[in-house]
Order: sequence, then structure tokens, then C-alpha cells
Amino acid sequence: MTRGFYIGRFQPYHEGHHAMVERIAGEVDELVLGIGSADQSHTERNPFTAGERIEMVTKATAPMDLITYAVPIEDLNRNAVWVSHVQSMSPRFDVAYSNNPLVVRLFEEAGVEVRQSPMFRREEFEGTEVRERMAGGRDWEELVPGAVVDTIAEIDGVARLKQVTDTDSGEA
Amino acid sequence: MTRGFYIGRFQPYHEGHHAMVERIAGEVDELVLGIGSADQSHTERNPFTAGERIEMVTKATAPMDLITYAVPIEDLNRNAVWVSHVQSMSPRFDVAYSNNPLVVRLFEEAGVEVRQSPMFRREEFEGTEVRERMAGGRDWEELVPGAVVDTIAEIDGVARLKQVTDTDSGEA
Amino acid sequence: MTRGFYIGRFQPYHEGHHAMVERIAGEVDELVLGIGSADQSHTERNPFTAGERIEMVTKATAPMDLITYAVPIEDLNRNAVWVSHVQSMSPRFDVAYSNNPLVVRLFEEAGVEVRQSPMFRREEFEGTEVRERMAGGRDWEELVPGAVVDTIAEIDGVARLKQVTDTDSGEA
Amino acid sequence: MTRGFYIGRFQPYHEGHHAMVERIAGEVDELVLGIGSADQSHTERNPFTAGERIEMVTKATAPMDLITYAVPIEDLNRNAVWVSHVQSMSPRFDVAYSNNPLVVRLFEEAGVEVRQSPMFRREEFEGTEVRERMAGGRDWEELVPGAVVDTIAEIDGVARLKQVTDTDSGEA
Amino acid sequence: MTRGFYIGRFQPYHEGHHAMVERIAGEVDELVLGIGSADQSHTERNPFTAGERIEMVTKATAPMDLITYAVPIEDLNRNAVWVSHVQSMSPRFDVAYSNNPLVVRLFEEAGVEVRQSPMFRREEFEGTEVRERMAGGRDWEELVPGAVVDTIAEIDGVARLKQVTDTDSGEA
Amino acid sequence: MTRGFYIGRFQPYHEGHHAMVERIAGEVDELVLGIGSADQSHTERNPFTAGERIEMVTKATAPMDLITYAVPIEDLNRNAVWVSHVQSMSPRFDVAYSNNPLVVRLFEEAGVEVRQSPMFRREEFEGTEVRERMAGGRDWEELVPGAVVDTIAEIDGVARLKQVTDTDSGEA
Repeated sequence: MTRGFYIGRFQPYHEGHHAMVERIAGEVDELVLGIGSADQSHTERNPFTAGERIEMVTKATAPMDLITYAVPIEDLNRNAVWVSHVQSMSPRFDVAYSNNPLVVRLFEEAGVEVRQSPMFRREEFEGTEVRERMAGGRDWEELVPGAVVDTIAEIDGVARLKQVTDTDSGEA
Repeated sequence: MTRGFYIGRFQPYHEGHHAMVERIAGEVDELVLGIGSADQSHTERNPFTAGERIEMVTKATAPMDLITYAVPIEDLNRNAVWVSHVQSMSPRFDVAYSNNPLVVRLFEEAGVEVRQSPMFRREEFEGTEVRERMAGGRDWEELVPGAVVDTIAEIDGVARLKQVTDTDSGEA
Repeated sequence: MTRGFYIGRFQPYHEGHHAMVERIAGEVDELVLGIGSADQSHTERNPFTAGERIEMVTKATAPMDLITYAVPIEDLNRNAVWVSHVQSMSPRFDVAYSNNPLVVRLFEEAGVEVRQSPMFRREEFEGTEVRERMAGGRDWEELVPGAVVDTIAEIDGVARLKQVTDTDSGEA
Repeated sequence: MTRGFYIGRFQPYHEGHHAMVERIAGEVDELVLGIGSADQSHTERNPFTAGERIEMVTKATAPMDLITYAVPIEDLNRNAVWVSHVQSMSPRFDVAYSNNPLVVRLFEEAGVEVRQSPMFRREEFEGTEVRERMAGGRDWEELVPGAVVDTIAEIDGVARLKQVTDTDSGEA
Repeated sequence: MTRGFYIGRFQPYHEGHHAMVERIAGEVDELVLGIGSADQSHTERNPFTAGERIEMVTKATAPMDLITYAVPIEDLNRNAVWVSHVQSMSPRFDVAYSNNPLVVRLFEEAGVEVRQSPMFRREEFEGTEVRERMAGGRDWEELVPGAVVDTIAEIDGVARLKQVTDTDSGEA
Repeated sequence: MTRGFYIGRFQPYHEGHHAMVERIAGEVDELVLGIGSADQSHTERNPFTAGERIEMVTKATAPMDLITYAVPIEDLNRNAVWVSHVQSMSPRFDVAYSNNPLVVRLFEEAGVEVRQSPMFRREEFEGTEVRERMAGGRDWEELVPGAVVDTIAEIDGVARLKQVTDTDSGEA
């Protein structure tokens, strides 16, 4: 049995993430989706709460033939203990997936196997694109799985993003 | 669709918890299992990490006809914001299940419906019993679901509990 | 102009505190009432929130011929920076009033004048007494100023204290 | 009896804030002034401590026919629990006043009534103006109430602001 | 070159610690002395600040033929990341020395070699003894190296310990 | 006996720092080197851990005729308590050395003597220069003491800096 770990902020979970998960599904039996910056929400860059993102990720990956765990990872703001923090919050995993150079470095220094992908930073690019379209009142639904559209509708997520994007600072 | 929320420390997840989940399963379509004191581990009272407990809870409830989410809840040590913290970490829920008077009070003051059960504090009682049997080298396996026995074996959990029980203080 | 500083947890503000404030009123023009453990609430020892205690203290001292400030002081759990923390949260003061040996020591090491009183630890004793009477359903109203009785009634404070006193641990 | 809540950083409390308070005074019996970012001080954007700001706010509003409370609110850096944090630190209030879109959103999601004003962001604009004039050695006194001029003189506030404005980063 | 790591609270550094360091000196070229609970001070159990303990440890080990580093380790209250925290605060080390079962367990789970000693818990026992003698006004000087006697005299440490021992709670 | 305190981030310790320490050595008997932002590492601006920086500083100053202490200072993000925090983590000192206006201000408000130097901000300038050369694959060794070159080689520091510099954000 092989278990993988894939971290993202999933603000929101979009087709770029989904393609990555589908690719990983061919390599592992189980996959932990680490929801980064779990303590952040209601900002332009991090509009959704950890709970909302757990729901998106769980619903969107449910139809796949893959056992998944959605695990919120709160920021500790200490890079040197970040891998231990992740390992304590997640079911034990054998391999980590990331294209973020810092994340790759931290896992490698801790002796964890990391696999990178040619889809370099598509995740980050698409997340920004989705949020800008939402804030600007343009079509964004095609960029995310249908289950994510439903969750965002339920929580009135587009209105929230528009409103907080009006704020100068992301701090209340 | 009704979603419930049931919080415990699940150190470890045992038959008392499991009976409670089975009872709740008759009332809701989906259930969030909030894993309390998620930042605590390696102590006599909290031997297992959040990740290990996620694995126990997920595997043990997988065979049930119930959609479940295992969500770690880190301690904030501020009772007054605890409900908001839980709500931000969890998919939205309609009703909370708890027999802990403080938890009941906090949810009620926040306007959340809470349901209590006649199985008063069986959870707490059985958790202590399981940990004492483990530390004392006695049989404990009958008190937890089989999936939990497996997880504890994989992580060498009994040896860990025995060793930290030797420590005067639970702090490194 | 002389400004004093008097710290307590004020759980709740009672006649022992009030007598102390009346005595201090003869020595200063203005008085800061530091509300300690401001982040704690909903426990047997700390049932009331900082906001509720601000209201008690402000209403109870309003009739006095003394300018008062009620300032919440959150715990930092680092004794060595506690005085600086207090000084940054409070309007500047000339003299501190306390009978707690640790508080006295910390202020003295920081070069702040401290005055003690013969009413040694009456504050602590009476706080415990009031809370035990509330939890036990006995008369407690005579031990606190009338304004405090009103605030506790408004927030349904006795019911809260009774309920959380039922809890084994003070942590949710 | 109606109690309002008005939050700002009050760095320093200026005529823009004061005009807002005077307008609110016509609608409520009591007003809580929440002093945001209470843990920040000695930076270009947040030069004054919470205690200094409590003094400014209390002195400047004392002559008004309005019962006020000045309550420091420390940053928790978790937007999702911010409203609960404010509610626990403040006497209970019926309506919140703010023009900050994030603050408005957070209160609305928590079910708190929020009133906005046509004086849109005058608070923020004037705060920056006052601090820039101070740092640049120009006249700023006309932009703040007289009581604030006094407090800033007592604490040698202009010299402090000039000195920290020389620093690249706001972190010691 | 072999570097060891030895952790203690050193409240204060006493002959039991010193004997341990002398034994370790025969096995390593350099030794890091980790000063645990570095953020605690002014309590009965932790009377001295990290800075005071650094001074004790450095002066007392200076005459030895051993390169030493005194490194304060603040509590993170998360056992699962404790080893990473220690490793990030300390020069890299090859072997850890401890008799505390929890510390041993944490290092072993992280793959760090740990060596234990027959002087089981003499450190803890002697620390309590020294503090009780100080608080009780009895002779304690023979239990600590001369350099430690000097440091405690300079900081008026005995008076501090006596005073905070009078306090019910160790929290200001 | 005079003891000085000199704070820097030492990312890494370079010739600009070293010239400053040599100058200070003429004025004091002992010197505490406070390692600022001790909790930060693995970012473009703060590539090295506190432990790695302790090693650099200790090795580089060992040949000097000066007793030194390398003391990590974690960020508290509260300027108002920063001096107390430093004082609790460091052996007692008589004079602080800094050219950072904020640090100077904070020490002066706390009544600590501060000495500045004509080498204004050479520390900051050279630190940036060293890190940019490392990231760009250019010669940087001449800008730091030999002992620092050795430490950075041992920990594979240049590769780490190059890799994290590739990251958009400094947060994992």
C-alpha cells in the first residue's frame, strides 16, 4: 500500500489541482490532500475557510477510485518545523507531491521522497485566475469541478470574495 | 441533507465512540468527526497524533453507510472563540453531538443545536480504560474496532504509550 | 496627577475588590483596573469573558469620584515580559497595587513602585466564595456590588457557571 | 438601552474618528470603541501602544454626553474567529459601525447588524495624513482633538514616530 | 568531530548536571547544552530566566576541556514537532543525552541516537532539592558549582525564589 | 566588568558584522550576540536556522580575545515587550550596540544605554549582497569569515538559498 501527500491552499480546488490528483492516482493507493494556510480565510488570496475547502476537496474527489483524506494544515510560520507539523497532522505517507521549491527543499532536508511534475505552477496560476474572475464578475465555473461550484454557491462565496477584495488590507 | 458534528479526542477511537457514531448515523446523512486537542500527542492522556487519529477514525467508520469527515481541531485555549474556530475548520453542520457540559454550553450560547445522549461520559471513561490497559500490558483490543488495532500496531503505539507514561511531566 | 494600577481577574468583581478600590481612591486621581487572564472564560475559575468583566468593573466604579479605566490584559505566559505587556496595554501609571507576591516581585524587578495592603488575599478568597455559592445555588448577591448582580443576570451568568462546573476539564 | 461598537486602530484618534463618534452618539446610549491591532506599536503605521490609545480615546470622548468604553483588541490573525474574539473582549453590543468591507462582511456573516456611513474611509485617509505630517515635521495638531495633542506630547510621540519611520522594516 | 546534545531546565545548573557533563565530555568533542522551558521564569519550579541560566551554564563549563554551546529552547507545546524545533535552534549534533523517557522517545522516533545514563533522574531530584533549600533558607551552595553561586548572588536569586514560592499560582 | 549586547539577524555572519564586533571588543569584556528572527529560516531573506547561525557566530568569534555568547532571539511581534524579551533571553548587559532606529528607540525608551556607530547599516547592506551573490552563483566567500564559509559548506547552504529563492512566497 502506498500513500501520497499533496499540499495546496485549494482557494478554491480547481481543474489544475484535479488534473494533478488524477495523475497521482495512478501512482498511489491513498492520497492525503493537505489544505495549507488552514487558519486563513476571508481575504482576497485566501477567501475560503478550511472547512469549506475540506468540503470542496472531499466532494470533488469522491467519484475517483482513490481513498482520500482532506487534512487542514495551519500555518506555524517556522519553516524548520513545518515537515514535522505536516507529518503529525497527516496519516503516515510515503511520498510527497509538490512543485513549490520551498516545500520540495523542506521535504528533501527531512529525508522525505518528493515527486515533481511537468505541470509546473499550474496550480498557483489557475487559483489566481479563478479568484480574479470571481471578483470581476466573469465566468469562472469552467475552471473548477462541478462539486466546487455547488459548495461555493451554498456559502455565497462569490459575494464574499468580491467584498473582501474591496478591502485595502486583508486584516480585520 | 443533514450534517452532524461530533467532537472527541479519540485517544484512541474506541467502541464507546463507535456506538455513539452508529446512533448518530440514524439521524444524519453526513457526520463530521472533530478530533480535539489535535496539536497534542506523545503524552499519557494524548498519546496519538492527529494524523494517527484521522487514520483510525476514517478506517473504522469507512464500512458504515454514512459519509464522514475527520477534521483535526487544534486547541486555541480561548473558550469564547472555540465555536467559531470549530465552524471554520469543519464543513458546515446542522447539529452538534456532545455530552461534555462545557461544549454543550459553548454551542448553545452560539445558537447551535446540541443533542445529548444517555451514554453519559462513556467516551471519557472508556478512553481512560483503554490507555490504562495498554500502559499496564493488559488486553485492550476488545475495546476498540479492528481497524484501530491495526493502526496502533503499525505505529508501535503501545510501546509509545508505555514509554511516555514513565515520564513525570507530559512536556518534553 | 497620580495614576494607579490595580490588577485582578475580577471573576466576578466583588466587595473585596470594591473595598480595595475605595481605599486606593484616597491615594490617586485616576485608576486603571487591569482585568487579568482576559482571554479566559467559561471555566469554573474564570467564568466570565473580559467584556463582561469590563462592564461589571465600569458600572460598579462609575458612582465613585475617581476616573477609572478597565483594561483587559491577556495572558502571555512569560513572566519576564509581563510588566512590559501590562505597561503597553495600560495608560501610563505611577504606582501599582497588588498583594500577589509574584506580581509584586515582577513590578519591583522592573523598578515600578508597588503598594501592598493589609487586606491580604481577601480578593482571592472572596472570588472563590462567590463562585462556589453561585455553583451551589446559594445566596451570593450580598458579596458583590449591585451593578455586578445586574450584569450577571443579563448574561445568565449563574447558569453558565453551574454548567461549566459540571465539566471535568476546563478545556473544550 | 442601545450599545454600539466602533472599531479603528486610532493611530492616533483624530477628527475623522471624532466626527464619526459624534454621529453615532445620536443613535446609541453607550459606545464601545474597539482599539484594533492592540498588540502593535512603535511602527510607522502603528506608532502608539494600546494603552496610549486608550488614554487618547477616553480623554477625547469624556466631554461628550455618551458612556464610552475603550477596549483593546489584539490581532488573532484568523478572520474566521475575529467576531467572536471582539464579542468576548467587549461589553455586549447591539450594532457595529464600520466602513471596512472585510469588517462589514465578518459581522454580517456572524449575524451582527452593521451600519455604514457616507464618510467612507475618511478615518483611514486622515490617519495616514496625521502620521505623515508628524514624521515630516509639519503641523498636525489641527487634525486631532486637543486631548490627543496632550497625550502625544506627554509620551514624546512625535519623536518616536520620526525615529521609527527611519527604519526599513517595522520589526525589531 | 562528534557533537552531543544534552537538555535540561537547569533551574539552576547543579552538581548533578555537572557530573553528567563531565561524563559526556569523555565521549564528544563539543556539547550543546539545551536550556529547556526557556520562556519560563519567576516561578517556584522555574525561577531563573533563560539568560541567567545561559550565564550559569557557560561560566560553570568554561574551565572544562570541551567546547560548549548554551542554547535556549522555548516551549512549543507540541511534542510532535519538538525534535525539529530543537534541531533548528541548535548547531547540528550527532547524539542526544537524556534520561527523560518522553525526550528519549521523541528523539528515537525521529531517528536520533540517544544515550542514557545510570544517573537516572538525579538531575530532576537535585534541582528540586536545591530550590527547596533556597526557599527554606537552608544551605544550598554545596549542591551547585561555584560559578552558579556567583550568578545567583548577582541577580538576587534566592530572594526571588522565596518571594514567588509564596504565590499560589505561578502565573502573574 | 562590562558586558555588551549586539543584535543582528546574521544571515549569514559577515565581515561587516565582524568589523563591528572587533570595534566593540575594545569597549567591553564580554559580548552577547543576539541572533534575531531566530524562528525564521529557509527563506530568501532568512536562509539559515538559528542553530546554524549560532555555529557561524561562535566559530568566527572564537579566536578573538573576547568572551562571547550567541543567543537566539525569537520574534514576538510585539515591539512594546521586545526589550524585556531580549533581557530575559540574554545574560545581563550594560550597553547595547545597534544602528537600527527602531532598536535604538526601544532600548532608549526602556532606559538602556545604546551606542551607535559610523558604519551605518553596513550590516544590512552586506547581508543582502552576500545572499544575492550566493543565489546568483557568484563569489561570496570573501565577504564572510573563513569559519562561516565552512559552516555554509557543511550544511549545503548555497543550494538551499538558491532553491528557496526560486519560491514566490517565503511561506511553505
